[in-house]
Amino acid sequence: MSASMSDDARWLAAAASVAARARPISRPNPGVGAVIVRNGKAIARGWTQAGGRPHAEAVALAAAGDAARGATLYVTLEPCAHASERGPACADLVGASGLARVVVGCMDPDPRTAGAGISRIEAAGIAADHVPSPACENSLSGYLIAKRLGRPEVTLKLAMSLDGSIALGSGESRWITGDEARAHTHAMRAKADAILVGGGTLRKDKPLLDVRLPGLEARSPERYVLTRGQAPKGWRALPSPKAITWMEGIQYLFVEGGAGAAAAFLHAGLVDRLLIYRAPILIGGRPGIGDFGLPSLDAAHGRWRFCERRQLGSDTLEVYEAENPSGK
Amino acid sequence: MSASMSDDARWLAAAASVAARARPISRPNPGVGAVIVRNGKAIARGWTQAGGRPHAEAVALAAAGDAARGATLYVTLEPCAHASERGPACADLVGASGLARVVVGCMDPDPRTAGAGISRIEAAGIAADHVPSPACENSLSGYLIAKRLGRPEVTLKLAMSLDGSIALGSGESRWITGDEARAHTHAMRAKADAILVGGGTLRKDKPLLDVRLPGLEARSPERYVLTRGQAPKGWRALPSPKAITWMEGIQYLFVEGGAGAAAAFLHAGLVDRLLIYRAPILIGGRPGIGDFGLPSLDAAHGRWRFCERRQLGSDTLEVYEAENPSGK
Repeated sequence: MSASMSDDARWLAAAASVAARARPISRPNPGVGAVIVRNGKAIARGWTQAGGRPHAEAVALAAAGDAARGATLYVTLEPCAHASERGPACADLVGASGLARVVVGCMDPDPRTAGAGISRIEAAGIAADHVPSPACENSLSGYLIAKRLGRPEVTLKLAMSLDGSIALGSGESRWITGDEARAHTHAMRAKADAILVGGGTLRKDKPLLDVRLPGLEARSPERYVLTRGQAPKGWRALPSPKAITWMEGIQYLFVEGGAGAAAAFLHAGLVDRLLIYRAPILIGGRPGIGDFGLPSLDAAHGRWRFCERRQLGSDTLEVYEAENPSGK
Repeated sequence: MSASMSDDARWLAAAASVAARARPISRPNPGVGAVIVRNGKAIARGWTQAGGRPHAEAVALAAAGDAARGATLYVTLEPCAHASERGPACADLVGASGLARVVVGCMDPDPRTAGAGISRIEAAGIAADHVPSPACENSLSGYLIAKRLGRPEVTLKLAMSLDGSIALGSGESRWITGDEARAHTHAMRAKADAILVGGGTLRKDKPLLDVRLPGLEARSPERYVLTRGQAPKGWRALPSPKAITWMEGIQYLFVEGGAGAAAAFLHAGLVDRLLIYRAPILIGGRPGIGDFGLPSLDAAHGRWRFCERRQLGSDTLEVYEAENPSGK
């Protein structure tokens, strides 16, 4: 947190950190984070619980109890304005809380809220501000894309050599990256609602695509295979990348390859984020991405923004985001 | 220069920096650097001049004049013990200099010197020490490999996309990297004695392989094409990677691709250093390295040591060195 950030921005970033605990268990609800602050100190926090209820605000308010009176609630997403059979509207809960102020990092695109949350809170006599927060936006990326575009956020993972190979010419592909990188991939799987591989990869590698990390085994996401045919038992079939609009309630889709599936998603313009795990080896083998119909080199430039690089053992992870993820 | 380096190691590293000015103009002689130090200050420096004469020690001693008396000479390579018609032996020059001490970063593998340089200096009553210096070793890498293995040091340059492509499927390859990376490549060419491309690349791209940097145009290296056939005018033919042992007087060979030439040198185990310029783009096109006969993924690991990463505009340069460059 840089010194030049405002206090509001810093507390919203803190709420976004808390929200990470809701991903992806909050599904089908957004994974929201909330922090209640009094005299410059966090006194309570909450995140959306498994299955979507209780909401983050309700958890934080319950934790704060009477101490919420006169405090400020920082919440990543505008509190919901619509009650359901599963619980009260957070805007009403907040309205009755005695809080002095509510700060919201993202407005909710859900038409049942979309500004009505803030209005209801203000009508209850509590100051309510929208302070746009990249950290909150980022922590809700899958939800926001799903609401705006009707599809999940797509992360394409590539585990490659320096020369972009994902296998020897013979097909041998285990292992290119090391233990740390593979454990990181499992942690990324645990943050996805669904995971997908191409039909060829499924036939050849028979990947389990489960989360082999102690304590996170139950987080293994739904498994999809990109095929126009039948999916084997335990898998669902996705006939084409565009069919991700059918994936009800899926906010985060993790595409693990192979080269054909990667090319199909790139061709469809349906990749929002790249995770590239790169081992310090040369292979001279099968490329990680098939021909995706790029018309010219000019068209390749300016599409990906570098976000992050980290060392994972002897491998390097680089993260890129699409420059124009439509709808973001 | 870290605080934990000894003064000797720091001055030898300084001499190695000075030696950079001799590369590659010193050819066929090694590019040596020398610094004369008195009371903790550099009072003179010298590097091997164009064509190999005068030597670095002679240049530095001439610059210091009488001030050399009682001073210390730091020199990257052991002073030569053999006179030639082109000049006196540096060991004799140093012996008559009045220097108090000589510190040498690398012993000279040339059998005409190989310890005789230091002995001659000591016989003249001057203290002489060999303080092994990685910086000096590195600055003389091409010379040392040439003396020990009878071949030049080979640097393989790859300019690729994130997915390891060097061209679209159509063959379009201009440009993948940006201006800064291409200028850096030209600076690297200017440090090579010879540059090589594969026959296919020569036919397709008709690369000039010259140095297009102001003031360095004259540094354009000798041009080789990997072919069993005839080389076009202005080029020399290299029939196979192993034939680099025929390259008389060439210390630094820069291999610029394409995929076939890269694979041929890797297959022969004749790549000492990788320069990977990587653009933040995806292409899904032609891979930068062809099949070089790797028997298994196990055999791919542990071969390359990461040395350096730097940003060049939006591109990244990574440098790797072979883990076991035989003879180093």
